[in-house]
Amino acid sequence: MIILGIDPGLNNTGYGLVELDSDCHRLIEAGVIRTKASKPLETRLAELYNGLEEVSNEFKPDVFAIEELYSHYNHPKTAVIMGHARGVLFLVAGKSEIPVFSYPATMIKKSLTGSGHASKEQVASMIKRTFNCNEMNVQADVTDALAAALCHIAHEGRGGVF
Amino acid sequence: MIILGIDPGLNNTGYGLVELDSDCHRLIEAGVIRTKASKPLETRLAELYNGLEEVSNEFKPDVFAIEELYSHYNHPKTAVIMGHARGVLFLVAGKSEIPVFSYPATMIKKSLTGSGHASKEQVASMIKRTFNCNEMNVQADVTDALAAALCHIAHEGRGGVF
Repeated sequence: MIILGIDPGLNNTGYGLVELDSDCHRLIEAGVIRTKASKPLETRLAELYNGLEEVSNEFKPDVFAIEELYSHYNHPKTAVIMGHARGVLFLVAGKSEIPVFSYPATMIKKSLTGSGHASKEQVASMIKRTFNCNEMNVQADVTDALAAALCHIAHEGRGGVF
Repeated sequence: MIILGIDPGLNNTGYGLVELDSDCHRLIEAGVIRTKASKPLETRLAELYNGLEEVSNEFKPDVFAIEELYSHYNHPKTAVIMGHARGVLFLVAGKSEIPVFSYPATMIKKSLTGSGHASKEQVASMIKRTFNCNEMNVQADVTDALAAALCHIAHEGRGGVF
């Protein structure tokens, strides 16, 4: 089973593919899809969609795991813009009939570190340890995406659908 | 020049195509794209995308005109879900390199009725009069979409880009 974890964002969307084989999991591929802030929103959304579609078509994940959006309510404009980006990422899954599971940020952090309020550095540290990539200079967008994928493995089927 | 006006929504997205020829405009086609609330979000977004893509491919609009989202901030969850739907509608434009213009609801209403706080009924009444379709039982999703298209004609180039 292949899980595509996603850390959604209009500027940078992190993704990470994790393969689960009986009880072992391994990192297949991870990266960041970037869009240029100077371009119109519709163009940036197309870049984001094309980028994730390419990843999805190449690695054929069985499921998408993505962070819920509710933590952004203090910044409603950001949440709405993020909703646009998240919508096109969901669309990549929908067009290929791949199910999407959403997990609250606190659930993802707790699942990985034991604390729902862990810092980005703690999450990154656990991800590097899990995948034996301590020496790599991995971006937070990627470690957060991989954290979502691992949360799905730990809680499969118990995430939300939005 | 053909303008595709859109009233975005996850349940119902209204659309209306208006052709502008020198100073005259005429209604080409209008309708509603519906998605089933019982289906997963990713499937509904794919239905929405496919529906609008079909309309866009058939009528080849030069521009999309769509209502801004800011009026929904009293209901942040609704605004975020709407953001998902709006994102895939923008994507239809982005994939075909069609520019999108956004207009605040008050600007659309004022442009059509003279009042930024006109009711949906007033907007519908003006739309029916404009297009000589008084007898038709036109849905609010369609009249709001056509209102966005007419607002673009009145204020071309002066709308926002988000």
